Amino acid sequence: MFTVQMIPEAQRRIAPYVLETPLLRLPALDEALGCRVYVKLESMQTTGAFKLRGAMNRALSLTPEELSRGLVTASSGNHGKGVAYAARMLGTTAVIVMPWTAPAIKVEAVRALGAEVVQCDVTERFARAEQIRAERGATLIPPYNDLFVMAGQGTIGLEIARQQPDLDAVVIPVSGGGLLSGVSTALRAEAPHMKICGAEPAALPRYTASLAAGEPVSVESKPTLADALVTQRPGDLCFPVVRQNADRIVDVEDDFTLRGMKVLLTEGKLLAEPSSCIGMGAVLQGALRFRPEEKVCFLISGGSVGLEQLRLLDTV
Amino acid sequence: MFTVQMIPEAQRRIAPYVLETPLLRLPALDEALGCRVYVKLESMQTTGAFKLRGAMNRALSLTPEELSRGLVTASSGNHGKGVAYAARMLGTTAVIVMPWTAPAIKVEAVRALGAEVVQCDVTERFARAEQIRAERGATLIPPYNDLFVMAGQGTIGLEIARQQPDLDAVVIPVSGGGLLSGVSTALRAEAPHMKICGAEPAALPRYTASLAAGEPVSVESKPTLADALVTQRPGDLCFPVVRQNADRIVDVEDDFTLRGMKVLLTEGKLLAEPSSCIGMGAVLQGALRFRPEEKVCFLISGGSVGLEQLRLLDTV
Repeated sequence: MFTVQMIPEAQRRIAPYVLETPLLRLPALDEALGCRVYVKLESMQTTGAFKLRGAMNRALSLTPEELSRGLVTASSGNHGKGVAYAARMLGTTAVIVMPWTAPAIKVEAVRALGAEVVQCDVTERFARAEQIRAERGATLIPPYNDLFVMAGQGTIGLEIARQQPDLDAVVIPVSGGGLLSGVSTALRAEAPHMKICGAEPAALPRYTASLAAGEPVSVESKPTLADALVTQRPGDLCFPVVRQNADRIVDVEDDFTLRGMKVLLTEGKLLAEPSSCIGMGAVLQGALRFRPEEKVCFLISGGSVGLEQLRLLDTV
Repeated sequence: MFTVQMIPEAQRRIAPYVLETPLLRLPALDEALGCRVYVKLESMQTTGAFKLRGAMNRALSLTPEELSRGLVTASSGNHGKGVAYAARMLGTTAVIVMPWTAPAIKVEAVRALGAEVVQCDVTERFARAEQIRAERGATLIPPYNDLFVMAGQGTIGLEIARQQPDLDAVVIPVSGGGLLSGVSTALRAEAPHMKICGAEPAALPRYTASLAAGEPVSVESKPTLADALVTQRPGDLCFPVVRQNADRIVDVEDDFTLRGMKVLLTEGKLLAEPSSCIGMGAVLQGALRFRPEEKVCFLISGGSVGLEQLRLLDTV
């Protein structure tokens, strides 16, 4: 059972290892997005993404004996980096299972943190991590479907509520739902007036499909430029929290996500990975609409992007 | 005579038209730059650069009759944008004289603000602006050598001193010296413990040459990637202020400036134009050195850069 009390507990636990990231007002984006634009910059988090928060909170909940047998996870990259960093900080080992489709920059970043990388097909990654867990007695740190991970991500919500309490809405990228369930729980408690919106890739509409079905269902694995948002099925622990808290979940085409990335870079002067820009994509697509006077914070979830990927922006 | 009192006056005058820009702590850059890194983001200023502050302060000092005859200036781009924006805000016209070498993005930006653009050789730009002033009775707004312009740029110093009073040093890009003279005057008054460093392109070392000579001297016009820092001679009004206030002025090779731009983008997740990154270039070149515990703020002066210019970063 996920409770709001787990989030301030997580905040105290992980504080020595994570940054309170900046929340900025970006008037340069108001015209393009049709509202008063704010950004919460987890792209500037240590390891380059919010994922460190959840991974660190889970790792810090282990006994010394558990920790000594190492950590293992399956991850499209940023969570893997978070687990690798947590292992290094806490003096243990990490194995990171990554899909072949993960960008080279993310694979290299994990190896640079001293972790072992095992690559496989995207659909096999959880089975492979489970196999490594069983063989080595390591602790599996799930990317989203875990109460400690959800609570760790939720610490972003506490920061948002304190940094900009007068926001009207927060827009959050969605994959398995760890980020959205954690942040929405914190915001419902600390800032219940804020509208909470989730944005997922149209290629993998696992939340809109599951909300329509009333329970978690799987969608087909399809490619998306939002390579950090490739989960096929909502987390069982995340789904009921998201269903209760989210005002809107919308599906966003890659082209609009890329346009969001372009406007954030060219007008906002901020670099973020495509997945992080899906909320801005949702507005550019017309899937989310705000009034000009509404204060809307876009959660920029990570910044793991190679300069060569910026060529993609010439296409939109 | 430039006095520190002109700066809070400028702040009150321009406040309705300019943003207080963010000053961020960027731990991700500490390793590369060998100190505790902060950035003051004038790249996020309205019109994309600090230049709006000085131009707006000068324009707001005019009588209605003077204002009605229009504004004119010579500028490598960002100052022109500032003057064009000031003219539009105050309901008058602007003519902007720009060198042929100015990036297309800057020329287009000025035209988009409704100003008339006249292009010429970089060495002829001041004479051409003067000619237009005489012909039309317009007011010439100098890019740096003007007390109102210096005071407007100085408002950044007031913001820095308030936003992060415990800084050990501030590093400032230098061309004619308007920014450095204004900001250093504010900081000497509000935060006299801060070390003040200026960085200019090695191709146009007008300040190191002039400081050595004890008076403003001209250097040869040479190309530099720092296209906003192409002034050949310090401003007569700026020079004595810079000489009195600056602890160090260093000359930086373009390659190091580009490396600064690359580290700011890839590690810091912030896009800035090459000229803005010359302070980081100075540290990467070894021309400026700080101790690891020193808190150093790099003034990021503008963000006018086209995506096609990012290809330059592949070369360093």
